[in-house]
Amino acid sequence: MAIITVDVLIIGAGPAGLALANWFRNSGIRVLLVDKKTGPTPRGHAEGLKSTTNEIFAAFGIEPQIEAESWRLEEIAIWGESKDGSGGIVRQHVIEDKVDELGVARETILQQSRVEHHLLQNLLSHTNIAIRYHTAPVSVDIDTSCPHLSEEYPVTVHLANVKDDKPEANGTSTSNGSNGTNGHHHVEERVQAKYVVGCDGAHSWLRKQLGVAFEGNSTDCLFGVVDLIPKTDFPDIRRVGYLRRATGTVLIIPRSNKEVRFYIPIAEKIGDNYGTREEVTLERILATARAALSPYTLEAGTVSWWSAYCVTQRVGSRFSRRRERAFLVGDAVHTHSPKAGQGLNTSVQDAYNLGWKLRLVLQGRISDPEALLRTYESERRPVAQDLIDFDRGYLKLFTGPSSQFETEFLWAMKFSTGLSIRYARSCAVQLSRGVEDVRPSLLKADLVPGKRLQNFQAVYQTDRVVDRIQRRMRATGAFRVIVFAGDIAEPEPLAKAQRWGEFLADRDSGLGRVTMPSDGDDATAWQDVPVEILMVHCANRHQVELLDLHEIYRPWSSDQGYDYWRVLADVESVIEGHGRVYERLDIDKHRGCCVVIRPDGYIGAVIDLDDLQGLRGYFEGVGLIGAIPN
Amino acid sequence: MAIITVDVLIIGAGPAGLALANWFRNSGIRVLLVDKKTGPTPRGHAEGLKSTTNEIFAAFGIEPQIEAESWRLEEIAIWGESKDGSGGIVRQHVIEDKVDELGVARETILQQSRVEHHLLQNLLSHTNIAIRYHTAPVSVDIDTSCPHLSEEYPVTVHLANVKDDKPEANGTSTSNGSNGTNGHHHVEERVQAKYVVGCDGAHSWLRKQLGVAFEGNSTDCLFGVVDLIPKTDFPDIRRVGYLRRATGTVLIIPRSNKEVRFYIPIAEKIGDNYGTREEVTLERILATARAALSPYTLEAGTVSWWSAYCVTQRVGSRFSRRRERAFLVGDAVHTHSPKAGQGLNTSVQDAYNLGWKLRLVLQGRISDPEALLRTYESERRPVAQDLIDFDRGYLKLFTGPSSQFETEFLWAMKFSTGLSIRYARSCAVQLSRGVEDVRPSLLKADLVPGKRLQNFQAVYQTDRVVDRIQRRMRATGAFRVIVFAGDIAEPEPLAKAQRWGEFLADRDSGLGRVTMPSDGDDATAWQDVPVEILMVHCANRHQVELLDLHEIYRPWSSDQGYDYWRVLADVESVIEGHGRVYERLDIDKHRGCCVVIRPDGYIGAVIDLDDLQGLRGYFEGVGLIGAIPN
Repeated sequence: MAIITVDVLIIGAGPAGLALANWFRNSGIRVLLVDKKTGPTPRGHAEGLKSTTNEIFAAFGIEPQIEAESWRLEEIAIWGESKDGSGGIVRQHVIEDKVDELGVARETILQQSRVEHHLLQNLLSHTNIAIRYHTAPVSVDIDTSCPHLSEEYPVTVHLANVKDDKPEANGTSTSNGSNGTNGHHHVEERVQAKYVVGCDGAHSWLRKQLGVAFEGNSTDCLFGVVDLIPKTDFPDIRRVGYLRRATGTVLIIPRSNKEVRFYIPIAEKIGDNYGTREEVTLERILATARAALSPYTLEAGTVSWWSAYCVTQRVGSRFSRRRERAFLVGDAVHTHSPKAGQGLNTSVQDAYNLGWKLRLVLQGRISDPEALLRTYESERRPVAQDLIDFDRGYLKLFTGPSSQFETEFLWAMKFSTGLSIRYARSCAVQLSRGVEDVRPSLLKADLVPGKRLQNFQAVYQTDRVVDRIQRRMRATGAFRVIVFAGDIAEPEPLAKAQRWGEFLADRDSGLGRVTMPSDGDDATAWQDVPVEILMVHCANRHQVELLDLHEIYRPWSSDQGYDYWRVLADVESVIEGHGRVYERLDIDKHRGCCVVIRPDGYIGAVIDLDDLQGLRGYFEGVGLIGAIPN
Repeated sequence: MAIITVDVLIIGAGPAGLALANWFRNSGIRVLLVDKKTGPTPRGHAEGLKSTTNEIFAAFGIEPQIEAESWRLEEIAIWGESKDGSGGIVRQHVIEDKVDELGVARETILQQSRVEHHLLQNLLSHTNIAIRYHTAPVSVDIDTSCPHLSEEYPVTVHLANVKDDKPEANGTSTSNGSNGTNGHHHVEERVQAKYVVGCDGAHSWLRKQLGVAFEGNSTDCLFGVVDLIPKTDFPDIRRVGYLRRATGTVLIIPRSNKEVRFYIPIAEKIGDNYGTREEVTLERILATARAALSPYTLEAGTVSWWSAYCVTQRVGSRFSRRRERAFLVGDAVHTHSPKAGQGLNTSVQDAYNLGWKLRLVLQGRISDPEALLRTYESERRPVAQDLIDFDRGYLKLFTGPSSQFETEFLWAMKFSTGLSIRYARSCAVQLSRGVEDVRPSLLKADLVPGKRLQNFQAVYQTDRVVDRIQRRMRATGAFRVIVFAGDIAEPEPLAKAQRWGEFLADRDSGLGRVTMPSDGDDATAWQDVPVEILMVHCANRHQVELLDLHEIYRPWSSDQGYDYWRVLADVESVIEGHGRVYERLDIDKHRGCCVVIRPDGYIGAVIDLDDLQGLRGYFEGVGLIGAIPN
């Protein structure tokens, strides 16, 4: 039997598994993805990309191709039953699909197959990452006695070749089988790994092996979903549409290629009068849609995909097991209605939370690996729980009375963008000394530890080229210290920024050991630095000369000269308007502040510019090796 | 000897040839491109893409990939010699690189190799278009007695295989050889074609065969050009930089991957003290650049390409010959200084002007092919002449006195975007009856026949998704009639728009024969319609229902239902602001107007909404078959 040794074994190569694997690009970390499927998802399934997910794709460098293929959603139309007794429907609201705090599109539409394609393409040139389809795990064994910093491979997984898995058909499909094999298999390989991650879907094999309970229940709601080119006189077919009928709400989502997706409630009681999920046919789904749209007509042009499903609302009791050697990600630990478009998004975001922690630990950069790895569960499980609660309320919103509808709908729009997510205090999320807690506004992108940094726009000091901060912060595994230096055309803020520069670059009493290369000064050495320093000032750009600033803000490499893209200005761009960073984030232009951004774009700490030691405290707390001078 | 029969033979597969070939996508027209080179340009050469060129790429559908790879230019810095006698340089101006009329970036940077790559990729799935490298023409013979509408192939070209062409080296290169073979060759194939187009560069073989004079001269200016990663303390290295030295002006253009391009004047007199072009070395170019930048330092990191060249300023005496059976495009008929970045842009724009005319003629849609094909020369030769005049002035701008410098520079910025281009009156550019001429402002994107339609932004009535008009008008060969219907929430403009709709759709007395499919009503039949109708209104979008408008504005196909993307609204978008189309184009909101846009995005005619027959007159004039009821 062949033996394969890898650092990370990922079970399941859907969006979560592929996103996780993307974290290990440009590293020496060996990763194996296995999936029993024959290849990427061919069609259908998830399609709504929230802004945070698009930020993650930007950090992976695949934003342009994703954006080029995505369809934009701009307006939402709410329709209800007309009160004239005709049985018809009337337009009740048209709502702008916009959340001001984001500054970008709240949601775009791209089918899962294309998302998987681009995530996969992005891995192809990285020989440390391998993908094997037709492959499923059959046993897992984990030795929890190994310390994380050792060179041992305590996870043993046996893999089998799955030859008889058929390509997915329309209608009923993958949701029947678990990702493990069903008893009959031929064990072919043994994998020795340091970590194993289950991205293997709602019927997760790994979750069952780890004895993790999947708490919650199946609802009685049976839904049909269909992607088709509609031939209809319904006037809002190219808006996101909620058709609130007494029999349930039909959801319409426009997509590219003239197609529209319909989510259609088929029945509330399964197995009663309505039959089971397996008995649902395309014809029945279309008939139900047609009845809901009446008196408007609906005929189907090309149907590219359809399916039927029951909503289950469950959260895994644990997201990690065996002293943080095994992790569960995505549908493997949370399932809910697809209506708010949270499945793929939350899965990718789970993976994005976990990946950098594994990367840093495997690179030997973290002094207390278990503490950092524990934050995966402590950060992501509450997100999943909140999501289930939201999902229950969201389903109700479409059956209850409508007096507060618009307000509640707007709240839901904001919630579903992730604006309410705030990770709890931990080694990776720290409050300043003396501060017990801060109360962030629930749905605002404010500068609070544990929240995601707003994806603000600014221009580079050097050339006025526009960038967005989350795109700037590529998924390299580096922390960023952003110095909001204020108006550095004034002497005092400038002096403070320079003092910070000295502290940041000082190897003996400051942070120089983690902000500068330890060996050599070429561009490659700079790429490996664990903490990257950025500055965002709000001075008149023409009164600032980049090369007058401390060298840590524009470091020199022996082969490529200065790095010109560390200092941004909060000023008007040439074409794209003004980012208004200081105003949006409520930063005082004279006092400024310093923010630590984790490798995943979340705020680790917010520090006063007078508190030099506070910054060092963060990196000591998270256990970044090198932060503490010997 | 093998015989190949094609409709169009294109000699030269650089940007001009590839752009021309892109016009024949999704058609049955057979095209052969031949090039003596071994493959696409590997590096160096042109790199500045003007906004019009980017619009063309959008019309070809390759804008996303071009944009993703392009570098933006936002600021221009002018430096001059300091007057303190130190021999140093001082910053004189920083200018925003922006032309308000464009609404988009004036210029972006992408190296020619990537432009060729994307143009080439876009052809790959089209089996009617073939490309052969290592292949050069050795003889051409054209029978001018054939009528254009016949089925004959009057162009005979013999091709030879070129085996010994070496890959291009740095320094001196392609500019020595012509695109034909140099005497020793083995004739392998005979091509019979309807048309032959020479896109074969400054030393064009076809130009010589056709006996076209290349009028103008070589200047005495010897330049070096180099792409490198600079190691320098010059503070404006990431701005477009003009360093005006007594010895000439050094031009600096930032590009991606930390690289910068330098254009460096080496000498004014060739063969005198300074040696010839062939004697220029990289070291000498760098030494000259270093002297110009002094007292700032300059060391070269990686050098990815360099070359030396003499500026020649020439225009071909003819752009087409042999009764419009042979055409010359791009560098084959105009050469000038690369400083204003006009070479690749003008070449691609030449090809864009010619391609649709050949396409429509070959599809048998034009009653007087020669008249339409003659407009290629009558439209593009004046552009080339103006460009040479501009080039002479532009070179002077950097040696003359500087009191008017900023004004003249802004003028040059506008000119170089093509805002001054206005094609003369012809069958394809028509003035309304009774109008002798209109005087457009020289450098404004106004609504005047012969000028390019401003690439305005608007949103779709149906879904509020943002688009730009030039991107909307894909390179399909269709003319567009844009009905600027005004405020159609008001009864009178609405009634007028509906009356236009009836006229546009009427097969007997109106334009229905060219605006609607002649056979079948599925989506494919609609794609072949020679005139597409669009509407841009400025009403409150919520007071307009798309389906209330005349069917020509939202036509039905039997397989895909309504076409929802023909009606645009001049209103605020959800995220990208307001396009202000009516204001920018100075269109009266109550009167409106109707504009004919040629397949290449230029304005063919501007017609009053009361002048139904004026619109028919345009299509009769251009000879569009089907426009005139029998």
